This record gives sequence, C-alpha cells and structure tokens, in this order.
Amino acid sequence: MTQWVYSFGAGKADGRADMKNLLGGKGANLAEMSNLGIPVPPGFTITTEVCTYYYANGQNYPADLKSQVEGALRRIEEIMGARFGDENNPLLVSVRSGARASMPGMMDTVLNLGLNDRTVEGLARRSNDPRFAFDSYRRFIQMYSDVVLGVDHHYFEELLERHKEDRGLTLDTDLKAEDWRKLVAAYKDKVAERLGRPFPQDVQDQLWGAIGAVFGSWMNQRAITYRRLHDIPADWGTAVNVQAMVFGNMGDDCATGVAFTRDPSTGANVFYGEFLVNAQGEDVVAGIRTPQHLTVAGKNANHSTLPAMEEVMPDVFGQLEKVRANLEAHYTDMQDIEFTVQQGTLWMLQTRTGKRTAKAALKIAVDMVQEGLISKEVAIRRVDPAALDQLLHPTLDPKAPRRVLAKGLPASPGAASGKVVFSAEEAEDWVARGEKVILVRIETSPEDIGGMHVAQGILTTRGGMTSHAAVVARGMGRPCVAGAGDLRVDYAAKTMKCGAEVVREGDVITLDGGTGEVMLGAVPTIQPELTGDFGVLMEWVDAVRTMKVRANAETPLDASTARQFGAEGIGLCRTEHMFFDPQRIIAMREMILASDEAGRRAALSKLLPYQRQDFIELFEIMAGLPVTVRLLDPPLHEFLPHSEEEMAEVAKAAGVDVATVRSRAAQLHEANPMLGHRGCRLGITYPEIYEMQARAIFEAAVEVGRRTGNPVTPEVMIPLVGTKKELDLLKMSVDRIADEVAREKNAVLRYLVGTMIELPRAALRAGQIAETAEFFSFGTNDLTQTTLGMSRDDSAPFLEVYRQKGIYEQDPFASIDVDGVGELVKIAAERGRAVRTDLKLGICGEHGGDPASIAFCQKVGLDYVSCSPYRVPIARLAAAQAALGAKVESTA
Amino acid sequence: MTQWVYSFGAGKADGRADMKNLLGGKGANLAEMSNLGIPVPPGFTITTEVCTYYYANGQNYPADLKSQVEGALRRIEEIMGARFGDENNPLLVSVRSGARASMPGMMDTVLNLGLNDRTVEGLARRSNDPRFAFDSYRRFIQMYSDVVLGVDHHYFEELLERHKEDRGLTLDTDLKAEDWRKLVAAYKDKVAERLGRPFPQDVQDQLWGAIGAVFGSWMNQRAITYRRLHDIPADWGTAVNVQAMVFGNMGDDCATGVAFTRDPSTGANVFYGEFLVNAQGEDVVAGIRTPQHLTVAGKNANHSTLPAMEEVMPDVFGQLEKVRANLEAHYTDMQDIEFTVQQGTLWMLQTRTGKRTAKAALKIAVDMVQEGLISKEVAIRRVDPAALDQLLHPTLDPKAPRRVLAKGLPASPGAASGKVVFSAEEAEDWVARGEKVILVRIETSPEDIGGMHVAQGILTTRGGMTSHAAVVARGMGRPCVAGAGDLRVDYAAKTMKCGAEVVREGDVITLDGGTGEVMLGAVPTIQPELTGDFGVLMEWVDAVRTMKVRANAETPLDASTARQFGAEGIGLCRTEHMFFDPQRIIAMREMILASDEAGRRAALSKLLPYQRQDFIELFEIMAGLPVTVRLLDPPLHEFLPHSEEEMAEVAKAAGVDVATVRSRAAQLHEANPMLGHRGCRLGITYPEIYEMQARAIFEAAVEVGRRTGNPVTPEVMIPLVGTKKELDLLKMSVDRIADEVAREKNAVLRYLVGTMIELPRAALRAGQIAETAEFFSFGTNDLTQTTLGMSRDDSAPFLEVYRQKGIYEQDPFASIDVDGVGELVKIAAERGRAVRTDLKLGICGEHGGDPASIAFCQKVGLDYVSCSPYRVPIARLAAAQAALGAKVESTA
Repeated sequence: MTQWVYSFGAGKADGRADMKNLLGGKGANLAEMSNLGIPVPPGFTITTEVCTYYYANGQNYPADLKSQVEGALRRIEEIMGARFGDENNPLLVSVRSGARASMPGMMDTVLNLGLNDRTVEGLARRSNDPRFAFDSYRRFIQMYSDVVLGVDHHYFEELLERHKEDRGLTLDTDLKAEDWRKLVAAYKDKVAERLGRPFPQDVQDQLWGAIGAVFGSWMNQRAITYRRLHDIPADWGTAVNVQAMVFGNMGDDCATGVAFTRDPSTGANVFYGEFLVNAQGEDVVAGIRTPQHLTVAGKNANHSTLPAMEEVMPDVFGQLEKVRANLEAHYTDMQDIEFTVQQGTLWMLQTRTGKRTAKAALKIAVDMVQEGLISKEVAIRRVDPAALDQLLHPTLDPKAPRRVLAKGLPASPGAASGKVVFSAEEAEDWVARGEKVILVRIETSPEDIGGMHVAQGILTTRGGMTSHAAVVARGMGRPCVAGAGDLRVDYAAKTMKCGAEVVREGDVITLDGGTGEVMLGAVPTIQPELTGDFGVLMEWVDAVRTMKVRANAETPLDASTARQFGAEGIGLCRTEHMFFDPQRIIAMREMILASDEAGRRAALSKLLPYQRQDFIELFEIMAGLPVTVRLLDPPLHEFLPHSEEEMAEVAKAAGVDVATVRSRAAQLHEANPMLGHRGCRLGITYPEIYEMQARAIFEAAVEVGRRTGNPVTPEVMIPLVGTKKELDLLKMSVDRIADEVAREKNAVLRYLVGTMIELPRAALRAGQIAETAEFFSFGTNDLTQTTLGMSRDDSAPFLEVYRQKGIYEQDPFASIDVDGVGELVKIAAERGRAVRTDLKLGICGEHGGDPASIAFCQKVGLDYVSCSPYRVPIARLAAAQAALGAKVESTA
Repeated sequence: MTQWVYSFGAGKADGRADMKNLLGGKGANLAEMSNLGIPVPPGFTITTEVCTYYYANGQNYPADLKSQVEGALRRIEEIMGARFGDENNPLLVSVRSGARASMPGMMDTVLNLGLNDRTVEGLARRSNDPRFAFDSYRRFIQMYSDVVLGVDHHYFEELLERHKEDRGLTLDTDLKAEDWRKLVAAYKDKVAERLGRPFPQDVQDQLWGAIGAVFGSWMNQRAITYRRLHDIPADWGTAVNVQAMVFGNMGDDCATGVAFTRDPSTGANVFYGEFLVNAQGEDVVAGIRTPQHLTVAGKNANHSTLPAMEEVMPDVFGQLEKVRANLEAHYTDMQDIEFTVQQGTLWMLQTRTGKRTAKAALKIAVDMVQEGLISKEVAIRRVDPAALDQLLHPTLDPKAPRRVLAKGLPASPGAASGKVVFSAEEAEDWVARGEKVILVRIETSPEDIGGMHVAQGILTTRGGMTSHAAVVARGMGRPCVAGAGDLRVDYAAKTMKCGAEVVREGDVITLDGGTGEVMLGAVPTIQPELTGDFGVLMEWVDAVRTMKVRANAETPLDASTARQFGAEGIGLCRTEHMFFDPQRIIAMREMILASDEAGRRAALSKLLPYQRQDFIELFEIMAGLPVTVRLLDPPLHEFLPHSEEEMAEVAKAAGVDVATVRSRAAQLHEANPMLGHRGCRLGITYPEIYEMQARAIFEAAVEVGRRTGNPVTPEVMIPLVGTKKELDLLKMSVDRIADEVAREKNAVLRYLVGTMIELPRAALRAGQIAETAEFFSFGTNDLTQTTLGMSRDDSAPFLEVYRQKGIYEQDPFASIDVDGVGELVKIAAERGRAVRTDLKLGICGEHGGDPASIAFCQKVGLDYVSCSPYRVPIARLAAAQAALGAKVESTA
C-alpha cells in the first residue's frame, strides 16, 4: 500500500528533512522539527505523489487517500485533545501548499478550518472569549471563500467597512463579539449570494475543498508560467500540509513572534527577534502594535521601553533558547523561525535557513567554524561570492533619505557622490581644481579613460553590463551606473533630463553602482570594513582552490590594487590603454597618419620609451609573478579624433593638413569595428607596431630582472588569432626581437608566446594553434560576441526582452553561455592539450570574475582565471567553491 | 639494386605517364611519348629519389648513380650515332629540372651541353656551318655560367653589345662565324676572371655540374618559399632530365614549331599551330620573324601570304598530323605540343594538356564525347565551372583598345559601359531620361537598390568580394567592380579621381567585372552566345548531380532569370529587399517611428497587400517549385534616412517632427550592426512584423494554389537563430497565423518552418534546434563573419595582405573556409540529422555558387545549394563534378 500521508507532531514524524521531493520543503522541515523533539503543532502532509496521481487520473484521488487522511486527522485529535467538527471542543486546522521549491502563484494558506455555526460556539465557550471565536470564524470565511470558493476578498472588506461606518467605529479592535457575529452572518449571506449555495458547514467538505484547491492551484496559469520560466517540471507536484491551529491571541499568556538565531544584519551570535503578547502572526507583520524584543540585550541595544520576553515570559523564553540551540546544532546554519505561545505553551510553526547580509554571512560562516559547528569547506560554500562584492566597496547609508532620479544597470558596485560633468576633459579640469565629479556620458570610449579615472563615479545612458564604461569602471573599482535609458543627455546644453527634472553641470548627484540607482544630491556613504573575518575566510579559500587568480591590470595603481586583493599575476595587460595619455596619443596619431613604414617607425620610436617604462613599473610591482601582455588590439580609428575641431588640432600637431586627417579617418572608418582591422591583423599588416611593443617588453624585463635580481618571464599574448599561420608569423617576429634584445643587452631572456582564443575559428583550430602557442587565454567577451553574433554594445535593447522571455536566463556577457561559448572553450582546451599537454590555459574575459563562469572554468580544467582587481577576492572564493564542487563530483 | 635512371627514346622507355612522382611531370611525359612510338630525342631521367637521397646523405649521390648515368648516356649515343665529347661527331644534350608540380625558382634549362673548344670544331665540320657551331657554343657558355657557375648573364650581354658596337653591327644575325668565335674566347676569359678558374672543358664535368645545379636549386630560397606557400613537401624532390639536342636551325630542311591539337580559342577540331623554317624554339617566341601556319586552312583563315607547312614540308607535316591524332587518342584531351625538324626528321619535344578559353573547353568536351574519345563524366569534369561564368555575361572585345584608369576586385562578372553618376537617385533620373549609367559609390547600402537595378554596372571604392555592392550585383547579374581603393570619390564635387586623372559626372567609363578593370571611355563588348554545346553539357550535368540547385531571388525578374538558368526553386527570398520601393519605404518608416505596437500594426497593415502581391508573383513564376522565404533580417536603422534633408522628408510623410526622426535614428544607431538588433531578434521584440509577413506568405500561397490548381508549399525561414527557444517562440507565432489564414480562407495549408544556421552557437546547438526546425539553410556569409570574426565590409584592407602572406589562400567570403566554417557546417549537419533524419539541408550564402564550396556541400551531405540566378549553371556543373568526385571516393 502506498503511503500517501505522513504524520508529524508530539516528538516524532513519518518524514525527514531529506524527503523534500515527496513532502515539499515545508512538510519535510515540520517533520524534521518533530523528530528533534521540538514542539510543533501536530499535523500531516499529503505527498507530492498524490498531486501527480491526481493529474494523471482525471483529477481523482487515490482510493485509499481518504482513509489515510482520516487516520492522520485522528492522530492530531488525540494529541490536541480536541475533535475536528466537535461542537464543544473543536479541533481547528490550517491547510497550506508546500512544493519542493517555493513557488509564487500557488494557493498559500487557509487558517481556522473546522469552524462552522456550531463549532464557533464551542470555541467561544472553550476559550471563554466569544469575540476571539467569531473573529476567527469571519477570518476563516473570508480566506476560504477567497482562495477555495473564488469569492473575492473585497466583498468581505466592503461589508466590514460598511459595518464600521454604520457603527462609527475606526479600528478592527474596536469591534466587539456581537459585531463579529453580525458580520459572520453578513459574510455567509454574501457567499450564498455570489455562489447560489451556502458556505459549507460540513468540516469534512471544508477540508477536502481546501485540499482540492491546493492541487488545483498547481495548474493555474501563474504557476504554469512560473514553472516554465524556472524550468520546474510539472510532474514534481505539490504537497498539502494540514496542521492543528494554535493561537497566540487567546489571552495574555499567549504570544506570537519571529526570530533569527543570530543577528542577520551583523552576523553576531545573539538571539535576535521580536514578539507580541496576545496577538496573531499577521499582527507582528502588520506593524500596528510595536513589537517587543526577545532579549534584554536586544531591548537595551534598541533603547526599547517595552519589556523583553526574557522578562515577561521567562519560562517560555528559556524553552525558546533551547529550541534555538537545538535548531542551530541540527541545521548547522542560522535559522529564521516563527513561533506561537498558546496559554503558556510554546509551539514552533516554521524554521528555515535565514537570509542575511553579506557581512553577516561572512561572520556567521567564520564563527561557526570556530565554534566547531561546521567545517572550513562548508564555511567556504556558505558565502555567496557575488555578495562579497558589497564588502569591498563603499555603500550608501541605508538610513539616509534619497531622491531617486532614474535607474540604470548596476554596472560596477560601490556608491559615490559628486558634481555632474559631461566630458572627460571637464572631469580632469574640475578635479584639478579640487572638485569631486561624476562623469556623465551617453556612452564612453577609450578616449575618456583619463576622465573616468579621476571621477568618483560614472553614469552612462547607453550600453549594457559589459559596455566600455562598465568594463573599465569595474576594472578601476569605480562605481558605475550604465544604460540609464530614461535620462536624456544634451552635451551642447550641458544638461541631463529625466522627464521634467533637469540636472545641470555642477549639480550634485549620487550613484549606487550596486542597485543602478541615480539620486539627486549627496547621499552619505559607509566605507567598507575589511574585518578579520574576511582575511580568515580568504586564507581557507586559498588553501582549497586549485585555479590561480590573476587580475586584468595595466596601470601601476590597478596592479597594486590587484596584489593587495591577492592576485597571483596579471592575466591581461591591455597595452592600448597605455596610448591614450595626452603625450602619447600624439605620437600614436602620428604613426596612424604616417604615409609609409618609415614614418610609422619614426613615430613608434617615440612611443618606445613610454611603453618600456610602463612595463618596468608593472614588472616591479608584480615582483616575479607572471604578467601576460596583450599586444595592440583595437582598430586604429579608435585613436583618431572625431570632431572637426580635434582633427584640426591633430593635423597641426602631426604637421599634416586637416584633409589628410579627415581622409585617413574616413579610410579607417569601419561598418563593424568589432569584426574589423584589429588584433593580430594590425600586427600582420603593420609588423613594426608589434615589434616596438615586443622590444619594450623585453627591454623592461631585462632591466627589472637586473635591478631586482628577480628574473621576469613575460608572457606575450597575440590577440584575435584565427589561424595558426598568423601566430607563426607573429611569433617569429617576437622571437627575432627577443634575440636582438638579448644580444644587445647581453642577457638571457625567458618568455612565453601565446594567444587569445576569442574567435570560434581559433577554438576549432586550437590543435594546430597549440603547435605554436605556449598558452591560451580565453577572451570570452569577444568569443561571446562572435559565437552568439551579438554585439555587447548593441544588445541591450533586445537582451532585456530575451531574458524576460527566458531565451537567455543570464546576460551571456556577465555569465558564460555554457552551451554555446562553453562548448567552444571545452573544444579548444581539449584540442590544445591533446597537442601540448602542458599548455597553460586561462580566461581573461569579464567572465573571469563571475562565480558561475569560474565553476565552468574549473570543470574544463583551466589553470587560472583573470578578472578586474576589485573582483579578485570574489574570484578566489568562487574558485575555491568550484574546487570543492569538482571534488564532490569526482567522488560521486 | 635501385633503378636511379630511366631511359627513353627510339620507341620505348623505362617509365610511363603515371610515374610523375618518381620521374617528374616532364620526364613521365617524355617516357610516355617514347612508348607511343612518337619520335622523341632520346634521353634519360634521374629520379626524384636521387634528390631525396642527395639531401638525406650530406649532398652525396648514391654509389651506383654514376654507372647508371653512363649506361643511359651510352644508349643515347647509340641511338643518335654520336658520342658525348667526341671531337668529330659530338653528342650534345640538354639538362632540365622536372618536379612533380611545375615550380618557379628551380633551375630551368641548360642547352648544348657537351660543347668545348674541341667538340665545337667537330660540330662545325659535321654541320658544315661554323657560325651555327660557335653561336651554339657561346649560348652554352652563357647559359651554363649563369645557372650552374653563378656568373651573371649580364657580363656576357655586355661583351656582345661591345663587340657589336666595335664592329658597327646591329642585329645578332649580322654576326658571322668569326665574330662568335671571338666572343667565345672573350666569354671564357670573363668566366676565368670572375671565378679564378677556366670554363670547364671536360664534358663529364659539365654534365655533373649541371645535374648538381638542378638538385642544388631544389633548396634555394625562392624554391623553398614557393613550396611553403603551396604546401609542397621538401621530400618530394626534383628529377633531372638529360636529353639529346636536336636543332631546327641547321638549314632549310630544319624547322621548329608549336601547335595545339585543336583551336584553343574556339575549340574547333582543327590542327592549329605555327612554325619557322631554319630556326630555334626561342625564335618562334621572340617574334622577330613572322611564323607560318601549319595548315593551308589556317593560312587562309588568317590571310597569310606565307606558305603553310602542309605545303613546304608535306612529308613531315603528314607525320605531325599522325602524332596529333596519336596524342589525342592517347591523352584523350587537346594537347599543346612543341616540335623540331632537324634535317627532315621530326622530333617531338613536349606534349602537355593545352590551355583553352571557356568556350573552347565547352566545345572540346562536348565534341570529344560525340567523337567517342571520352565519356560524358569526363567531359563534365573537364569544364571549369568558374570559366563557364564568362559564357553567361557580355565580355569586352579583346581586340578593342582600352585605357585602364584603375583596378578593383572582379566582384560581379560581365562588362558594361555608361555615364558616371554618383547616387542611386541620379541613376534613376538619368535612366528615366534614356541614359545608360554606371553607378559609382564609395560603398552601397540597401537604399541604393533602385539605382543599382537601373545601372549598367556598379563601381565602388570600398568593400570586398562580398560587400553589399558585390552581393547585390551578382544577384542581379550586373557587372560590378568593388573596392577600387585607388579611386577617390567626392560626392559633393561629383568627381572621381585617380592620381591626376579626374572623371566627372556624365563622363563615360567601362567596367570589366571579370578582371576588375575600370576603363575610360566606352570599350565595345561581345554578347554571350549560349550555343548548343552549353545546353548539351547541362543536360549531362543534370543527369549526374545529386544536389539540387536553387536560386537566391526576390524580384519577378530574378526569379524568371533563375528558372531560365535551370534553378529548381528559390533557396533564399530576402523579404527586406521588397521594402525599399518608394511607396513601401514610407509605411516601413512609419512602422519604425511608431511609438507603440498599435502604431506599428497600423503601418504593417499598409505593407501587407504589397508583400502579399510580391509572394503571389514569386509563387506563380516558381510554379510549385519550393520557395524559401526569409523573414525580415536587417536592423531597422537600415530603413531610416541619414541626411538631415531626408529626415525632414520622412518626418513630414510620417506626420512627426524631425526631432523624433533624429532621436529614433540615434536610438537605433549601432556600433556593430552585423551583431546587432536584427534577424529573429526583431521577430522576438516586435512579433507583429513577422506576423504580417507570415500572413502575406500564407494568403499568397492559398491564392496561387487556388488559381493555378498547383498547391504551394512555402518554406518559412527564421534568420539569425542562436537558441532553440527563439525558434520555438517564432514557430508558434507562424503556426498560429497559418491556422488563422487556413480558417479564414477555408483552406488546407502545407508549409515548413526552418531556420538559417548562420551563428556558431546555432551550429553547435543544431541538435536542439532541429527538434523544432524542419530545415536548415546555412547562411555561410554571416557564419563566416562570426566564425572568423571578420566583417566582410571591413576586411578588404587586411585580407589582401593575408592572401599575399598565405594566411588564407582564398577569400573566405568567396570560397568556404573548410577548416573553420566548414567544421561548424559539418557539426550542424550531423547534430541536426541525428535528431531529425529527414532534416532538409541547404546553403544560401555566397558560397552556394562557388565550385570548391559546392564540393564541400556535397561531402557533408547537403540536399541543395542556392546561389545568384546567374550562377545557377555554374552551380549545376560544380554539383555534378562534386557528385562524380564523391562517387570516385566512395569506390576507392
């Protein structure tokens, strides 16, 4: 015989916490608490298999369900000493749905089931409180009619309001027993009027009606849609929980409360919660009465004048403290609990893992290891890497008032205030005279780097999470709100409008890069506090992880930040960012405007000393750690000016006429720059550029090696390779320069030459390419753009719709598209390693700082991930979690 | 004992034609002719294995080579009745290299080897012609010194010039025996002076020196580079051919000539060639003397006054005629031959397959089948599909003079002349008043379609073989020269400059789309003549091929052309081309400018009747053949105007203000439109667009089916799909519209819904996508752009360098990149068919008309290829060749 019904209560239960699939989350946890000897109102769970059976059999129940429910109900009656439908001592029950995963759209709860015109009188007598009894009955009629019978609750609310008006009453609490009794009659009339039949008086009819409503709600449209969007199979089904009612509102020896077993905000190991005497659960939430603290310490900390539970109900509080210890010891995690005290008896209604702030998560995890409750591995798994981000940046004071102007994408975390400027030049000027600024642009380009660097924060009205502004801001650790599409920027007028609101240059705004909010005026911020817990967790993390974590960095500041955050090298040094400095851009433009190779070489020779100095500084900071330098990648037109005015300036500086600049700019213009003349295509067509860069790298390596006694082994990375031959030709040139430098400096040079894998073709031909490449670095930004045929700068308008429709669940630029891009990474890793077993594999796209992507990297066997300096701790933690995940998988 | 040396001559030979790997191409053919009893000067071939041995053994010969060469040399002496080095009757030989594949950079030829101070006297006596003997000797010294001893030929040319000056002589023929005798002495002195040792007098030293020089040249830098670029392995080696000298310049019973066994220009089955009495091979080529025709017919046809060989040497001519027949019967192909007559004896020096025009290739192939020489299959293989293109378009009269202004890419074949205009509007205006125009643009965009259609030809200064201009022009069969980068177009001034040359609006130019040449003035053209041979071959072709050939077409004209050329359906109907018509673009822009769905639907309802009419016409023309309709693909901004003037016009027409148009255009602007908001992303975000198109298709299908009694089964194609879910959502919508139309019209609708595979992700996820898609059409244009990360509009500047450096041997947009894009096509075909065995597979990118790509399509099992109407015959032929190729492979 199939067991369709699982009982719990009175210190034992048929089910267990690990039977969620069968009993749903709520049922399994109620069973678990019962087994632990924790006082739980008795009840039973009708399994998810009944739901499946119900839909497989034309909405009929299994034949033996009815008898099993009867048996379970009898068990509740015995424990509670009351009988379902008894006119003198009625048992009341709640009926709730409970699926495996919590699911909006399902029928939620019916309370006080079992009341009818006769049992309500019994309840009034037993409780000696007719007002309580009729209040409970009218609540039941309203709830049951709404969710089971389909009579909308507004009908009942209208009746109540009219009654109060007629009597000149304001609050519900002003109503007496007689009022409720009259309203019960009016409610029942309304039901009969709407349905053409009376409100059910048979308690068995009430019970089966509620059970049927739960199962019926599994297939309502909202639930179906929710399941489709979350890939929940329809055949999981829902369970139904039927549980004895307990009341916290039957007198002053009654109470109801909610608590966390630790402080969910700070993580401190204190009992944290509130309660109300003589109240129902919903009264605590409603906020009409001021709740009291559980503990004296809590009362004092919050300067409350109301007595603590510890004071007014010391016995029950003592029981509750024991339950707290019991639950934490059992679940080994902070719990969020609900309880009711009925006439001096404690009943636990719910326990579940408590939500907490990032700071609390960190502290609780570290404390619990030190308390011997959990292992270090469990602690590592407990902290959400994404949440860690909050701890590394300033945040807005949550108590400060704020006037939100608009909302964009939370592109780079942290909060900042400053005066609005609309160009990078103005940002630099204003900062030079001591102002703090927020740089506002429609979108940013590499020319804006200087202004972005000096700004407190960056706001753009176009572009997504991986737009230029977002990527650069994250790299710099600057707060950034991107793609705030409701804002209209007018550069000429130096204004930004949102509807009627106008922000002018110099007005102060505040950005919250963690939420995407743009606020008027200055909102105070709180500085991050990297407490000892952070350091302790990071030590455990580093002991566990197998992948290295490097940073994407090119400036000395970025490199220092990266080391401070624990980076083990530089995985991507983008040399083009070094050319936008005002002194250098002149020589860069001279090179682009040169009419022949000799002219280009002359201009490049001016850039050489700068570039060499860049590498000297980086190599010194990284002190022997690996540094991967990517040779010039962007198309040359990115370095040319766009306005006529700037063109004239450039022409003058380069000693050519404006027409030449204009014509060169026109000649270099590209329809799709992302797929254009860039990356190694520049190295192939203008070999002298890469030669200069290779020389700068090698000369710097020799110099730093000599000066520090610590040999530098640079990793020279060729971007946008699609064929082995490209890499062959360019490696030959790099090797030749290395030989030259070694001869000139009489030095021994050690270095690696490798390539980005950022084109589908490169991934497919990785076997051939690995014959030449000594390392691969997956450039998953571009690999995503090409594999998905999706420009990261242009995808915002449709990607949002795509996510709504469930086409992509994640922004594929934020979290790697495992099925598409991931397969290419896997193919490349396999084919590359098949040819060269010690091929070093890393990732340097934006995904290198994304936990889900890092887990994927671990799976395909990468040696390291590389990310923005500020994301290094996140990546370290995610890598450790991935290593633990992989370990579990390999022992499974 | 290894046979290192293979003899030939006197009606037999050790080798055969199929021993090319061992004997090289030349050696194998000389052996073959000997075996056929054709008179060939006797000789021997030193095998390629000797070359390999030579390099594997420190540049030493096998021990027994010397004795084998001596034996073979003796055989030549016996046949020729002369002895190598004999003072009275010397045998002279030529020494030539001969690798498997003809290879520039190798040592070519040394003639007259065996002459020295004593044998030259013997030759003078035997020939009774001292001038001939000393002339031969001095030629030998110069050639041998140059290629074997490394004394540059300019030293000898200087001595000759000085001698002629001193004697007051002009032509070499003015020099007497005594002059040559003196020059011989001077030549030898010069050699001694340069080398510090005398010119070798020992004929064995001469011979081994020449043999060593051939083997040595295998490893010279030019040969190495050539092999690297052409993937020829170094261990193939070269053979050396040593052959008795015969002389056509020993008197009036001597002659030398070249001939084709059929007319290489027309293909006519006539003996076609020229000869010179008492001359050497080089005299025929030098063009100083007017050559005579072989046949009387040839003489008459060319109005020559010189007697034919048939007349002056009837016996030898008779022998030559027999050789001609013999060679054609044996090689079963038209041969290009060289011969020498020495004192009345015919010697054949070379035979090889003759080069021919496309027209000749066609005629010869068809004639030879009808003559029973070859099978139909062989005939099919013989005609180069690419060359067939010439036959389908007008060509420039080869005899007409031309002034070439510049050169671009041969983007669309055919030739055309017309007056230059610089905008599509002007093109339409000028044509409306009866002018013929050439449309000149920097690049074209979809707005130019109208102008391109009326123009005789299209010239652009930017863009590659698959730029918009090139693709559209090929589709229309319009001649096009693209990317003529030396031209500078100034739209404002309405001029086009190339250096100092200025072409103004209205000036006449001529384009040759087959060569890429741009010429000043009008050059007369020759119209194509689709003779009966073409039709005959096409019949054979269609019987052989297994893949269907469809056309890419959207206008009734294109569709009719396609059917005329034998298309078996439409593989790609690009619906966006239908929206650029002036009447329609207004509604299209209204839709784009609409602020909500209702506005878009209103505008779309205006487009519906036009679009339905388009499909009605197409379905009627295609008469039941399959028609694949691709729903809207390009980003919406392509339909918006760019200039302020046009924007004002559009604003007026759409009833909005200019600011709205400008702001909408700015909002729709994309950094990389190729990777932007286009394809099915439009269908997902604006479902109403695809709904209108689906309705137009289905209503047209019902109407044409009813009217013709021939049911139409449209294939609805969703572009740019990357995930199964996109296709699911859109197919659902198409199915819904089909149901609606079927209900409204009370009709039964049959149709297929499928997708383009044009993103790497789609190829990788083809298994999932095939669960929904009923067909795949590989959009290899976009698949190439994404897989290689290469924009077809922007790649011209580096792709040329890439081809020069051997990175890509073919333009990957013209011929499919088998290793990269090809692997994705293969993966998609395999994964798709694994899920749906009857999945229909086709290709509709530009590659569908490229023979090499068509061969690839056959290999991966596609059902059809689709290409421009004008390329349909080429695709039919290539598909037949691919089928034959596949057949051969499967029986191997």
